[in-house]
Amino acid sequence: MMKLNQFARITADPATQYRELAAIGLPADPAADFFATIQATYAKLFPVASSPQAIADAQAAIAVDDYDTLATWLQTPQHTMTRREFYNIGLQLLGFEAFTDFQLTAPLTFMAQTKLPVVDRDLIHTADFLQAIYLLLTTRTKHLVTLLDDLANRGFFKDYHDGYLFFNGKSQNVFDARQLVRECVWIESDLDTDGDGQRDMLEATIFRPKETDAGIKMPALFTANPYFHGTNDVDAVTHDPDPKLAVKTESHTKADVTYHPAPQPDLPHRTATGEGKAEVYADENGIYSLNDYFLGRGFVTVYSAGVGTRGSDGVRSTGGVSETASAVAVIEWLTGARRAFTTRTGTTETKAWWCNGKVAMTGKSYLGTLAIAAATSGVAGLKTVISEAAISSWYDYYRENGLVVAPGGYQGEDADVLAVDTFSRQKAAGDMLKLRGKWSQTLDAIGQAQDRTTGDYNAWWDERNYRNNLKNIRCDVVSVHGLNDWNVKPANVIRFWNGLRDLPIQKKLFLHQGQHVYLNNVLSLDFTDMMNLWLSYELLGVDNDAPAQLPNVTVQDNVEPETWHTYADFGHSAHAHKTRQYDLLGDFTGERASFADNATGTFKARHQTSDLFEAEIIKPASLYRDARLWLTQAPASDTRVLEGVPHVHLRLWIDAPTGILSVRLVDLGPAKRFGTVADVIDGAGYQLGYDYKTDKIVEFKPAAETASKLITFGHVNLQNPKNAYEIQQITPGEAFTVDFDLQPTHYVLPAERQLALVIHGADMAQTQRPTAVVNYHIDRASSSISLPFRVNENG
Amino acid sequence: MMKLNQFARITADPATQYRELAAIGLPADPAADFFATIQATYAKLFPVASSPQAIADAQAAIAVDDYDTLATWLQTPQHTMTRREFYNIGLQLLGFEAFTDFQLTAPLTFMAQTKLPVVDRDLIHTADFLQAIYLLLTTRTKHLVTLLDDLANRGFFKDYHDGYLFFNGKSQNVFDARQLVRECVWIESDLDTDGDGQRDMLEATIFRPKETDAGIKMPALFTANPYFHGTNDVDAVTHDPDPKLAVKTESHTKADVTYHPAPQPDLPHRTATGEGKAEVYADENGIYSLNDYFLGRGFVTVYSAGVGTRGSDGVRSTGGVSETASAVAVIEWLTGARRAFTTRTGTTETKAWWCNGKVAMTGKSYLGTLAIAAATSGVAGLKTVISEAAISSWYDYYRENGLVVAPGGYQGEDADVLAVDTFSRQKAAGDMLKLRGKWSQTLDAIGQAQDRTTGDYNAWWDERNYRNNLKNIRCDVVSVHGLNDWNVKPANVIRFWNGLRDLPIQKKLFLHQGQHVYLNNVLSLDFTDMMNLWLSYELLGVDNDAPAQLPNVTVQDNVEPETWHTYADFGHSAHAHKTRQYDLLGDFTGERASFADNATGTFKARHQTSDLFEAEIIKPASLYRDARLWLTQAPASDTRVLEGVPHVHLRLWIDAPTGILSVRLVDLGPAKRFGTVADVIDGAGYQLGYDYKTDKIVEFKPAAETASKLITFGHVNLQNPKNAYEIQQITPGEAFTVDFDLQPTHYVLPAERQLALVIHGADMAQTQRPTAVVNYHIDRASSSISLPFRVNENG
Repeated sequence: MMKLNQFARITADPATQYRELAAIGLPADPAADFFATIQATYAKLFPVASSPQAIADAQAAIAVDDYDTLATWLQTPQHTMTRREFYNIGLQLLGFEAFTDFQLTAPLTFMAQTKLPVVDRDLIHTADFLQAIYLLLTTRTKHLVTLLDDLANRGFFKDYHDGYLFFNGKSQNVFDARQLVRECVWIESDLDTDGDGQRDMLEATIFRPKETDAGIKMPALFTANPYFHGTNDVDAVTHDPDPKLAVKTESHTKADVTYHPAPQPDLPHRTATGEGKAEVYADENGIYSLNDYFLGRGFVTVYSAGVGTRGSDGVRSTGGVSETASAVAVIEWLTGARRAFTTRTGTTETKAWWCNGKVAMTGKSYLGTLAIAAATSGVAGLKTVISEAAISSWYDYYRENGLVVAPGGYQGEDADVLAVDTFSRQKAAGDMLKLRGKWSQTLDAIGQAQDRTTGDYNAWWDERNYRNNLKNIRCDVVSVHGLNDWNVKPANVIRFWNGLRDLPIQKKLFLHQGQHVYLNNVLSLDFTDMMNLWLSYELLGVDNDAPAQLPNVTVQDNVEPETWHTYADFGHSAHAHKTRQYDLLGDFTGERASFADNATGTFKARHQTSDLFEAEIIKPASLYRDARLWLTQAPASDTRVLEGVPHVHLRLWIDAPTGILSVRLVDLGPAKRFGTVADVIDGAGYQLGYDYKTDKIVEFKPAAETASKLITFGHVNLQNPKNAYEIQQITPGEAFTVDFDLQPTHYVLPAERQLALVIHGADMAQTQRPTAVVNYHIDRASSSISLPFRVNENG
Repeated sequence: MMKLNQFARITADPATQYRELAAIGLPADPAADFFATIQATYAKLFPVASSPQAIADAQAAIAVDDYDTLATWLQTPQHTMTRREFYNIGLQLLGFEAFTDFQLTAPLTFMAQTKLPVVDRDLIHTADFLQAIYLLLTTRTKHLVTLLDDLANRGFFKDYHDGYLFFNGKSQNVFDARQLVRECVWIESDLDTDGDGQRDMLEATIFRPKETDAGIKMPALFTANPYFHGTNDVDAVTHDPDPKLAVKTESHTKADVTYHPAPQPDLPHRTATGEGKAEVYADENGIYSLNDYFLGRGFVTVYSAGVGTRGSDGVRSTGGVSETASAVAVIEWLTGARRAFTTRTGTTETKAWWCNGKVAMTGKSYLGTLAIAAATSGVAGLKTVISEAAISSWYDYYRENGLVVAPGGYQGEDADVLAVDTFSRQKAAGDMLKLRGKWSQTLDAIGQAQDRTTGDYNAWWDERNYRNNLKNIRCDVVSVHGLNDWNVKPANVIRFWNGLRDLPIQKKLFLHQGQHVYLNNVLSLDFTDMMNLWLSYELLGVDNDAPAQLPNVTVQDNVEPETWHTYADFGHSAHAHKTRQYDLLGDFTGERASFADNATGTFKARHQTSDLFEAEIIKPASLYRDARLWLTQAPASDTRVLEGVPHVHLRLWIDAPTGILSVRLVDLGPAKRFGTVADVIDGAGYQLGYDYKTDKIVEFKPAAETASKLITFGHVNLQNPKNAYEIQQITPGEAFTVDFDLQPTHYVLPAERQLALVIHGADMAQTQRPTAVVNYHIDRASSSISLPFRVNENG
């Protein structure tokens, strides 16, 4: 049974409803005749039909009950309309099928199961019908979007040419997404990252609805996308996970590792000889369906790849201040605070004359990261960011507690690899003739600064820690992250969220059950519509109370399909949380206290892959059983909800001067858990506009039974028992303690399932792969794990 | 190393080349100044740039050698241009990158490796340059299409508004695919399949470039697509593979099983009250990227789902004559030979006034099947079909030699299941109110007629054997099939091809290494461009000699990546073939002659799936080792190329009155063979028009090493030792012979690899699953397999 949860629907008073119905050309007079209103309304709800006969045919396809079609039912004047009649028709308009999806005898039962709203009584007065129609138009369809959106996708607004139209607080699809002006401009930055003595010019690609040419000013959805102009092959520069861990000799202080900005050189401005319109057509296509969805709703979409990408000047810095400045420069141009030119080297200036001065940033991963980066600049005109699966500190992407770690699935990647990957300027060989030396130096410097030898935090990483600058944020923030994202791990979003808590801005958090994916095409949540409410409020000044309408925290359940919980905050002690500490001797039990980390040997002998290792290390009976401690709790008698940041305190000794420690918290017990990738429900069902692009609709569903599943994990270099820059030498055989956090989680552990704790050494998927076998002994009596729980699941 | 094989490029004489260059607005005068011609040409090849400065910037991105960009190189008059200079620039225009894809010192080496054509000398005269540019424009890019197509995708023809434009024999992308008129019409058929006394009205959806409104007449690409308006859930009607095989008691003659058409009732025509334009907008989207690609090239695309689908009248018949008649009716309307109306029940007639009277059919699977079906009607106006993975006889889809078999991956599917699947009329509940009884009777009749009890051929299946009517075909035929398609198996295409051989039509055959997939987005073949040549010839009357230009048979190699062989014919004794017969006692060796078919027991005990069974049954060491004979040949010392239809002759006895026999021919030996699914090379790299849709680009690549791979297989009911309708009772313990064909194949077996023959009973993925264990004894000395080989691989 499908569940179409909905959070973006506003409850409007009747007068507002009538006004909005009238604005979209539907009957709206509560004093008008009841049946005439019904007839006139149903004549309008089949926009594909442009003649009375075609409308009658469309109505004949709808069953009202077992005897009448809508066409025959409308032939006899009706004085009342039962809810059953109304919703039999309504469900078919929403895309559901009588006889299969629902029964004509029980539409209300189906609507309740599907979480669709209904009016509370049969329809007797015209006002009853109008309000029921208003509610139905704002109800979600089987096609992800609301009924009014779905009608618009079939041409409901094709003859509307009167500027913006808002319905239920959201901008409607009245512009023509097919008729885009596609153009490039070059923005003059304050940077000279390629050292040629000239300001780096940054290409930006603009897709704007043609209606802007007629004078309508629109806001911009800007996606800073380093991948926009292509990526390079990185096989040759990807690192081998090192077989030896370094003995660290140098400890650092907070001051040592603090970034201090270098003074910017004073660069000459380009001479401008006049102003003109764009001279270059944008031949790249948009890459995010949510952006595309908003084109027909009166939002210009803008992409810019930044320094060092094809068509722009400069070199890449993998999240450095030059990349933040690149994104900020685009916003400054959009809001009139910076110059741009029609060509990369010419002197004709060009303005964003079509922009209403308000900008939102969107994007996932590196793209969402740059949205956070730009937000921390406090740049004027940036009203909100919707950042998904974003990095909030690059140290939390490529390093962890003094260890080199890999983004999940990309063992051997590092900052220098990503710099090569995104240096698409390399694709323009003409650019490269004079740039090869500079780029080679730049890359060497990144390789040096990222310091794969110690894995420690330093000033270079500190430059890339956007959380240092959260206090500068002036825009509202929407953060979205997958609870199973082991590429950009959840610490990035939760540490960011915690840093925002006390800032005087609006902030919203979405946590879904996906890995490193977008959220807008998941059927069970009206994320697209929520963002319409949000962006209409932020960028178009619609008075829709979006900050109060949308929950602060929306979390997808990991057990009940298509279920989303809303909370006031996440993992915060003030909000219905408690933390319990469990020792590892009685609370968790297991046979042993020692293990020998020979994971690399087994991994190589068995020709394992990272994926296979990750599956194997959490199996009750595992290839790696001798390379780990396997500790379990008794099954719980009640459902428990973990939420927040688990903390590990371990006392141990090892027989070597170096060691990696990994800890995994595991959900143990046979169960059909969600698959790692959402199922495709409809390959092209999410329509992004009238006669326009489509995207697939997906949903997370229970997959094949598994014995266990990773809840969360963490890794530490044992030479960094306190933090990522202070070092403590290890004396083999001598006990010491380490304290570190696991990745944040929200995890429903059903009754009868067990928590298991896996303590092991190197993580073949994430850490270096030392070949020397190290023996570990855990003093379980002096070790513990603290687990945070939500006390009242729906608190 | 990528290989961009090309078959659709025509060698044109210089005068034609100059004329065509002039037609697209490029310099074309061989008497003009050499350097001025070069300058003027390179100014035109950056259509995204609309000003001299923007063009100069684009030229600056191209390296001519290690010192000059195209911009600087063009600043000094040149009297010659070396091939190295020309192709350094050329490769960058084709989308390749200097320094990574190729070296500026050796562009010609790269072009040869990539199979790109080059002129044979440095450029001295203007004519040399013009001819080199012409060749380059018709050369394939990294983006699958030719350079001129790629330029068109960036706006090269955006200001061209002068009707069709042909270049190198192919229609160019000069129409606006974004500006489609989308409309529905209802075609009046001669059928009354739902028995309501009225002619079944058949909905057709039309996407036509807006230029037709201005009077340009275009041909139609018509796809008869039963899935177009959605499918139904079939879980409830899918059959369980039967645990018992029936003892057949009734044998049949050819006459018994011959279909005789029923007389068509004489039905009243609808009264027409006048003529009008469409009244219904088409809200379904096109489903085939090749169709979409041709919109901008001046082809209308038409989809119709046929009887029993949503928006149409009638009921489904799973390939019966009513479905052929549905497809033919659409062609008749397109060519002016049949009436259609603007609405399903109204009286306003409407004509295909925009159609030039020429139609091609396209589509894969059921869609391609209906293309074959329509072709066998001989309907006028249908000039060609491009049918991919098509069924040529439904018995060869759901049955085999007296056995019920499943399409690969769809165990339990049958004709009745597919009828339910495609009966999308069910989605219109208003339609269903009066139709439920009729549909239920129809479905019962299909269930009865398909006869899952005996699995024998009968008159009902004979109605669905399009090969009975090949002599009626008047159109040219392109057939495409995957050599690994175990859903619609290759016998469908090869038996069809063999039936076409002596007909006075043009026919082309493509065999690729995919399963049940389209071919147009595979990078190593210019199938899209080949079809442009073909359709320009067939539907637009272009004198491009397409039948001679395109190879008769094009086959993808299964060992060498990105390699396509061309042949005069397939598996035909007249063309460099020989067949060798191998006995199963000396030529093939193995330890045993007997096995007990307990496959169903093992399958169920091990909770196997069809996929797992198929992998397991061909493993050298297998779960099913006791349920099969495993016979092998010695490794071959040379590469051998199997091509054609292997034939099995077995003498055996079994200890039961019923039995299934399966035979698999296997390629044995560790090797990295192609994956079953092509790798995605570029997720959106195949651009279908200017500012228009994209599709992914794919390629078949060697995947992880496997021990063996299925070459081909076949199944027989042992009660049908001769054919699918004559029965012979089995006396347990008494020997008899069976003769049957395996699926056709083209398979390169490299030296040192072995052929293995697996003889077993039930096939869990394809046949019924009997639970009684049957013992088989093969008289190996009296048994043999005949294998057809291509003598000269490139013959």
